[in-house]
Amino acid sequence: MRRAIALALENIRTGGGPFAALVVKEGHVVALGVNQVAAKNDPTAHAEIVAIRAACDALGTFRLSGCDLYSTCEPCPMCLGAIYWARPARVFYAGTAADAAAAGFDDAFIYDEIKLPYRARRIPMAELLREEGNVVFKEWAAKADRIPY
Amino acid sequence: MRRAIALALENIRTGGGPFAALVVKEGHVVALGVNQVAAKNDPTAHAEIVAIRAACDALGTFRLSGCDLYSTCEPCPMCLGAIYWARPARVFYAGTAADAAAAGFDDAFIYDEIKLPYRARRIPMAELLREEGNVVFKEWAAKADRIPY
Repeated sequence: MRRAIALALENIRTGGGPFAALVVKEGHVVALGVNQVAAKNDPTAHAEIVAIRAACDALGTFRLSGCDLYSTCEPCPMCLGAIYWARPARVFYAGTAADAAAAGFDDAFIYDEIKLPYRARRIPMAELLREEGNVVFKEWAAKADRIPY
Repeated sequence: MRRAIALALENIRTGGGPFAALVVKEGHVVALGVNQVAAKNDPTAHAEIVAIRAACDALGTFRLSGCDLYSTCEPCPMCLGAIYWARPARVFYAGTAADAAAAGFDDAFIYDEIKLPYRARRIPMAELLREEGNVVFKEWAAKADRIPY
């Protein structure tokens, strides 16, 4: 975690956001990630996402079984979702979502929005062509050589 | 949405997952995305994430103001988080999270996990060095030329 904190400080000094993460497997650092949202014009480039993508790339897998993720901050809902898809063994974080909110980041706001029914949310979401769209799941179910994930 | 559904079908046929998304601005398609999780060993390569990243890259911004996102499926928590960070004007989806769950995808499971206290979740999460970690937010707050996002 101390290495992640040092990376986040370094990232601030080079123009990035105040976040870093790393993935550890069997005592070795597999991949690092720092926040690159503004630097790369990529709203998904949070430290955890960057570290998870790099670790999967390094390990040649889309599952981080047996790995631990260290993040300088409690994961936002996007990163938490990515963690569930990647399935590391454990997650450690330093700052909390409340600490991030106090520093001006929207993590807590997004957690609140997720709990609301769609009609009460700030970004309107609506179902469209559900029946027509379900053809993709039928096609997927019929595919013998699909890779489950 | 019909174009997204056609893209998802095409993606299944070329070895990808049954999901596609596109970003539209002022009547024009800015970017497309298809699920590339297995193809690229990237657990974050959901259609919406791929489309959001491509749209931000095309528009040179990390905010999709004035854009609509069309997805063949209701966004999972990771993609919903990404949507809140990218801030499109509206989101439309065809299949629901329940449809995705019926097809074998974990979206609904992850939505359930997010609602649980950390100690009850499948992936253990623990705070570590919070005080030490908060130095990054102090450093961020002290930085005069930071880019808020």
